[in-house]
Amino acid sequence: MINANDPSLNSWIEVPAGSDFPIQNLPFGIFRTESNPAPRVCTAIGDYVVDLAVMNYLTLFDELDISNEVFNNRYLNDLMALGKAKTKALRNRIADLLREGNEEAKDLSWHFLHPADKVELLMPVKVGDYTDFYSSMEHATNVGTMFRDPDNALLPNWKHLPVGYHGRASSIVVSGTPVRRPKGQQMPDGADKPVFGPCRLLDFELEMAFVVGRSTELGQSVSTAEAEDYIFGLMLFNDWSARDIQKWEYVPLGPFLAKSFASTVSPWVVTLDALEPFRVGGPKQEPAVLPYLQYDGHKSYDIRLEVAIQPEGGQAQTVCRSNFKYLYWNMSQQLAHHTSNGCNINVGDLCASGTISGPTPDSYGSMLELSWRGTRPIAMADGTERKFLLDGDTVVMRGYCERDGLRIGFGKASGRVLPAE
Amino acid sequence: MINANDPSLNSWIEVPAGSDFPIQNLPFGIFRTESNPAPRVCTAIGDYVVDLAVMNYLTLFDELDISNEVFNNRYLNDLMALGKAKTKALRNRIADLLREGNEEAKDLSWHFLHPADKVELLMPVKVGDYTDFYSSMEHATNVGTMFRDPDNALLPNWKHLPVGYHGRASSIVVSGTPVRRPKGQQMPDGADKPVFGPCRLLDFELEMAFVVGRSTELGQSVSTAEAEDYIFGLMLFNDWSARDIQKWEYVPLGPFLAKSFASTVSPWVVTLDALEPFRVGGPKQEPAVLPYLQYDGHKSYDIRLEVAIQPEGGQAQTVCRSNFKYLYWNMSQQLAHHTSNGCNINVGDLCASGTISGPTPDSYGSMLELSWRGTRPIAMADGTERKFLLDGDTVVMRGYCERDGLRIGFGKASGRVLPAE
Repeated sequence: MINANDPSLNSWIEVPAGSDFPIQNLPFGIFRTESNPAPRVCTAIGDYVVDLAVMNYLTLFDELDISNEVFNNRYLNDLMALGKAKTKALRNRIADLLREGNEEAKDLSWHFLHPADKVELLMPVKVGDYTDFYSSMEHATNVGTMFRDPDNALLPNWKHLPVGYHGRASSIVVSGTPVRRPKGQQMPDGADKPVFGPCRLLDFELEMAFVVGRSTELGQSVSTAEAEDYIFGLMLFNDWSARDIQKWEYVPLGPFLAKSFASTVSPWVVTLDALEPFRVGGPKQEPAVLPYLQYDGHKSYDIRLEVAIQPEGGQAQTVCRSNFKYLYWNMSQQLAHHTSNGCNINVGDLCASGTISGPTPDSYGSMLELSWRGTRPIAMADGTERKFLLDGDTVVMRGYCERDGLRIGFGKASGRVLPAE
Repeated sequence: MINANDPSLNSWIEVPAGSDFPIQNLPFGIFRTESNPAPRVCTAIGDYVVDLAVMNYLTLFDELDISNEVFNNRYLNDLMALGKAKTKALRNRIADLLREGNEEAKDLSWHFLHPADKVELLMPVKVGDYTDFYSSMEHATNVGTMFRDPDNALLPNWKHLPVGYHGRASSIVVSGTPVRRPKGQQMPDGADKPVFGPCRLLDFELEMAFVVGRSTELGQSVSTAEAEDYIFGLMLFNDWSARDIQKWEYVPLGPFLAKSFASTVSPWVVTLDALEPFRVGGPKQEPAVLPYLQYDGHKSYDIRLEVAIQPEGGQAQTVCRSNFKYLYWNMSQQLAHHTSNGCNINVGDLCASGTISGPTPDSYGSMLELSWRGTRPIAMADGTERKFLLDGDTVVMRGYCERDGLRIGFGKASGRVLPAE
């Protein structure tokens, strides 16, 4: 059996230098085309999208015995529910079909190969429940410094548990979907009564989200040692935030309408398998965490992250460079904590990381931090400046791992801000 | 056309005095039987459950032209998605079939009538997103008095917007499902580091939840005048809460694991149509709310609510009597606020009210308030006392409207506490 992670593998499909999608990646997504508008499962390689429904129909996966309905599907949930043994074998089999020298598959390629710019990528996962964590110490410290007390920026619980809260699943959209500036209730500084109107302090939050690929029963807990079996893969995640709405509404029960107007995900789910070569340790946790949050081995990943803002008609400008490995709490700890009370998880649930800020000011993952509440505006190449987002701005998040000539990327999570209606 | 709300209607099925389910109610649910384990749509009348899938199969609803798949269904979502015009006509048609004098339907009754104690009622709704509001002023005042400042018990935003937050949909269970006492991280009083173990302060919260019956698109807002078109009906809702877990985890992003281990709903969705005779005004809102939260007419309902605790092997004892009409914010305001930022809603979404406490100490909707943080234990008939819930306790919530001899009830939302594992 071919191992898709084998760095010596090459494909008969050309993969341009710097592509997010070498044969060692093979993420999963959902697409449709003009000539066939039925949504179906695909993977990406180089500048191409590969129709996995057609591959299965051509009996190219036959030894795996997966029904056509799994691939002719609006979402990846049924595929993920097959379990990791099967999806891992599928990814290896796809690599076998696309590897250099597989002339049989190459001869059939006109059936399943589409130029990426000719297809529409759709929301890949039917999200049941969506949870947002708050796992970057740098982010939590920045926010605590700005809004509370610089000397006690982290709240007492922060280093003892991965703080998280429930988010809105219905308004998660795929990259490319425009995002309408929300309206909402705000209390202007110095006012004695609130007003209702368009958000003035619109922000992004640079996050990543993991996709649950295995369900549990109510009452069951998942240990840190088991957690990765329940995590299918990762996506980029923009947790759009309305800071003025948030500030007024969030006590005492947390953010609500400041977040629920939209969240943007990248169209590709990159599997944990593909990320395996980029596994790294996380920050040292001091004080020591309780036993149910302790873990062995390396549970984080070295994923470089960038955010660019492209003004209407202007050039994209990178405003943040961060890294997934900065996160204080890893995904295994998040999932162990999430299920420690017996809360059940379902295939398709999303758990986002919270804003991923790094140690330096250019690595902060939100405009709130980058402009330090608007006190340090960011100069843009077109001569304008940004404290928060303007109408017409497109926010583009990218992420990739890179080492020894191997690059495993996530594509992008992009969204343009439309004016309030 | 028969109007199911006609108070003069009687059924050929006997409805015992004090039943929640006269012919004027006709709530919707999902059931199965030992002889036919396929879940399907039903209604309730007296001590009977009526199989609506069989009624449709027998062409008794034929003029409504509803497919059998809508009734042979695990959930009510497809039925609700037909729209209010259709579901209202269906309810009226059912009343026509069950009314005294309909000999044709009576002759067929052996096909569709089941004694209620011979069927299993299932979770009636596939919940997409679940939102919990915090709309009782008495509850918010009690909590604010206990945990913050009696002189400023309500936070500044409370009278300006219906505070709410996202909850966990996956762990919502139907009445009768046992609830396992959760484990979790807590910070004991006076300790300098947290511990992990079984919740010691397990509580109920007396709530009601409305079921969304009509979807919106992302970006769309629903006005207070339109809101009732989007609300299919109401259920009883027990928002089980682990107070010690909640106290430690909830800053700054709100309750998470303190709630997500389980919530219990009643099996019947009582339609807004059936509640129409019990429409009442709500409390005066002072200061005046912003225009998008203003409304005309009576938008609340006079629903009497009770909570009983039944110790293991003992007698049920009512510990709380409250009323839905006490809520400061009504459902139309909640939904208008929820969608004011363009957040989309889907058929099957649940919006719970928050704990419904009344003005007197015996109307408080949680043990936290009833025992005032454990300082005023409740004496039980068996000689024990309760500050919070004990293992083996069954919490039973009931609700009903009653006036002029007409009683429209909700059945019950019941759950027994199992010891932590």
